[in-house]
Amino acid sequence: MALLLNCDLGESFGAWSMGMDEMVMPHIDQANIACGFHAGDPLVMQKTLRMARENGVTVGAHPAYPDLMGFGRRSIHASANEIHALVHYQVAALDGMAASADLTLEYVKPHGALYNDMMAKPSVRQAIMKAISDYYRPVKLMLQATPDAENHRIEAEHYGIELLFEAFADRCYDDDGKLLARTKPGAVHSREKMLEQVRQLADESSVTTVSGHILKLEVDTICVHGDNADGIAAIKEIREMLAS
Amino acid sequence: MALLLNCDLGESFGAWSMGMDEMVMPHIDQANIACGFHAGDPLVMQKTLRMARENGVTVGAHPAYPDLMGFGRRSIHASANEIHALVHYQVAALDGMAASADLTLEYVKPHGALYNDMMAKPSVRQAIMKAISDYYRPVKLMLQATPDAENHRIEAEHYGIELLFEAFADRCYDDDGKLLARTKPGAVHSREKMLEQVRQLADESSVTTVSGHILKLEVDTICVHGDNADGIAAIKEIREMLAS
Amino acid sequence: MALLLNCDLGESFGAWSMGMDEMVMPHIDQANIACGFHAGDPLVMQKTLRMARENGVTVGAHPAYPDLMGFGRRSIHASANEIHALVHYQVAALDGMAASADLTLEYVKPHGALYNDMMAKPSVRQAIMKAISDYYRPVKLMLQATPDAENHRIEAEHYGIELLFEAFADRCYDDDGKLLARTKPGAVHSREKMLEQVRQLADESSVTTVSGHILKLEVDTICVHGDNADGIAAIKEIREMLAS
Amino acid sequence: MALLLNCDLGESFGAWSMGMDEMVMPHIDQANIACGFHAGDPLVMQKTLRMARENGVTVGAHPAYPDLMGFGRRSIHASANEIHALVHYQVAALDGMAASADLTLEYVKPHGALYNDMMAKPSVRQAIMKAISDYYRPVKLMLQATPDAENHRIEAEHYGIELLFEAFADRCYDDDGKLLARTKPGAVHSREKMLEQVRQLADESSVTTVSGHILKLEVDTICVHGDNADGIAAIKEIREMLAS
Repeated sequence: MALLLNCDLGESFGAWSMGMDEMVMPHIDQANIACGFHAGDPLVMQKTLRMARENGVTVGAHPAYPDLMGFGRRSIHASANEIHALVHYQVAALDGMAASADLTLEYVKPHGALYNDMMAKPSVRQAIMKAISDYYRPVKLMLQATPDAENHRIEAEHYGIELLFEAFADRCYDDDGKLLARTKPGAVHSREKMLEQVRQLADESSVTTVSGHILKLEVDTICVHGDNADGIAAIKEIREMLAS
Repeated sequence: MALLLNCDLGESFGAWSMGMDEMVMPHIDQANIACGFHAGDPLVMQKTLRMARENGVTVGAHPAYPDLMGFGRRSIHASANEIHALVHYQVAALDGMAASADLTLEYVKPHGALYNDMMAKPSVRQAIMKAISDYYRPVKLMLQATPDAENHRIEAEHYGIELLFEAFADRCYDDDGKLLARTKPGAVHSREKMLEQVRQLADESSVTTVSGHILKLEVDTICVHGDNADGIAAIKEIREMLAS
Repeated sequence: MALLLNCDLGESFGAWSMGMDEMVMPHIDQANIACGFHAGDPLVMQKTLRMARENGVTVGAHPAYPDLMGFGRRSIHASANEIHALVHYQVAALDGMAASADLTLEYVKPHGALYNDMMAKPSVRQAIMKAISDYYRPVKLMLQATPDAENHRIEAEHYGIELLFEAFADRCYDDDGKLLARTKPGAVHSREKMLEQVRQLADESSVTTVSGHILKLEVDTICVHGDNADGIAAIKEIREMLAS
Repeated sequence: MALLLNCDLGESFGAWSMGMDEMVMPHIDQANIACGFHAGDPLVMQKTLRMARENGVTVGAHPAYPDLMGFGRRSIHASANEIHALVHYQVAALDGMAASADLTLEYVKPHGALYNDMMAKPSVRQAIMKAISDYYRPVKLMLQATPDAENHRIEAEHYGIELLFEAFADRCYDDDGKLLARTKPGAVHSREKMLEQVRQLADESSVTTVSGHILKLEVDTICVHGDNADGIAAIKEIREMLAS
């Protein structure tokens, strides 16, 4: 199965513009679309959905903690019920708008601090899984491919939901399968290393960690970034390499 | 066709409670549920939907201008595109959450200033009708029964949507079919006059205006209020009268 | 020095009403007024300030994490700079509005999760102290009286700010000087025990903990609650006792 | 008296950046700083104030209707009391933060739709004037110089407040002293015409309208824009011309 490329999009809000969505859309497979809680007002959501349809891009909901000021990057100590409800609200909002744009919402990828909390805290992850399980039609959950993938698959089976695993193209992994902190040397790959990491993920389902070990990672999709010209250029190179 | 009773519900938000939803639900047919822009956070929406299902109450979306501080009662000078998008967002959010509670969202009733603007300004009404028309599955629009009903039906046909007309139980109508301003004497009916008005609407499809004229009004549903004990008592009396 | 009574007030928002502010104001000394981030819109703030002035009540700012939906009760993982800025903004807003109501803002008491984080995390407490220290005129910081009071005084001296220590009238303390969790038996005092605890705080600067130990607590003010009729009755009884 | 240059600044919010504040600050006299209701979170406000101080720029509050999604550009039908309160809140927030940055807030310039409503509706203008009049210390009100200036001076005297009149550098005036709608030909001046208009305002206290008439306009300050490189270049040219 070929590796897909996913990207966070629709992160403008009102008069504020963010990201180079029009430049990115032609080169990706999956758009993670903000749902209004950290970015993405209703007009931005409609515009992003139209762009996705025109480019044949699959759409996913990118729900977040309610925190415009913090762009969803600050963890909020919410209860399982609160997380369940805020995931349902945001997924439902994008789902109905996607259907109205002749698109089918296929997956949910939590944003920012909600994503990090999902990976770090079973209670948050299970609240998200239960929300998706309770949603009236099946949508998949996208999370990070780690050595815990098998446990995550067992959890997902319990909730009767499907998972999509993603890896990061330009970030160096440590031996535990975590991303090396950005403050550490070598945390962000050069262009060459990034392409090499994607190739290894595609061909061998593994990454080479910071210490040189081979870490098995089965992934469905690669997370790429479309904030600036360098990011766009990288996406194109990855795309070409995967196609060749 | 029997007259239904509709009521605004789910207007609590976070730690703030509003309305006596649990007391009202057993006695109404249609719940207009707030969608988060003027009231109703995701947890409140879920709770209100569960209550509606347990009581066999039909649910509608109650979208508003984005204005928590003003409870959606202040008109916001929004463009047709903005209104289209904010209606889609709120309707979709409630729609998906309703489906997840085994309910089918049947209609949209705009709230507060958005409702008033819809009745007063063709541009706002048409933006709302177009939004409902563009929504991926059919939902009806609830608006006020007035002498302009025929024009509203023609507009609705143009957009391919169905309408529900509502009248107010306890408010006196002027000869133009508008509600008498609350500041005027006789604007709000006594209990006896309210029951008489509902009976006349049910049996004769008309109201007697402030000047004593008979005004034809074909209505599908009566708007009632569940904010306080008096409102609840009135709802029960109307219900009994309609059933007898 | 006599014990003062402080109470959280001004927690309504828009159309939502909370608390019995008018009943409470005549019986307290210090009003902790919400500043718009968890409760208290600008109109509510003005109204609460007027009530405080009419009753000769001292006013303090009650800043919170930005979280209307969660009423400021959910911890948000904010940086020291973010906390500094949000405290400044809220304190300044209330300060200028208080001055315009012929009142002088005297202190800051963080609300909800920000208060809890202040007591639990030195980084949060120091960010708040630095914000108050950097504020253009002196205002005091109100925090909980605990066995750590001496350390808090040393921190406050470092930042050149003054502290006010508060105790809780109706909550049982554990041997570490923490409030017994509400889920535990005996966590909330009976009316008699509450009055006894306040008397002991006033006369002996101590509380008797859940295990019967005497814990030294020097306090300036007692936190009381004005949410309901029972709370108001309790405030009056405490007031009478302190006056006798 | 020399003409000053004023510019809207501090319009970033959270992760969203807007304007080239650092490029503009060295070339202007007065910074209209957003106060959080349409733009400008607390961190952005602090940063903008520091920049103003470093560049010796006078600061004013730039309050708006509460509408992040609409960037304060949509009129909200608010009551006089609501406008009074929201102006007080925003002015006070910036005032205390400015004082904490060793700056003195000198004036208030309403933003966007609130500015337009102030110019068009006496009720809104008087609500704003009353708010400034009721503020605990004197701050001036900046509004547009029009042929109604004398009436505005009389209103201001009634409220006991001082006015600052501004003109627009790059916009063509019609014979009524209004800005020509942007949709009309000639609405936005070329670089040459812009400089000529500023020179005429400075030397002759007048503008030449679209039809060639000379319209008397006594102004204190010129509104300039710092959104992009062209705007910055224009500011520098105006500055040089005024200095020569």
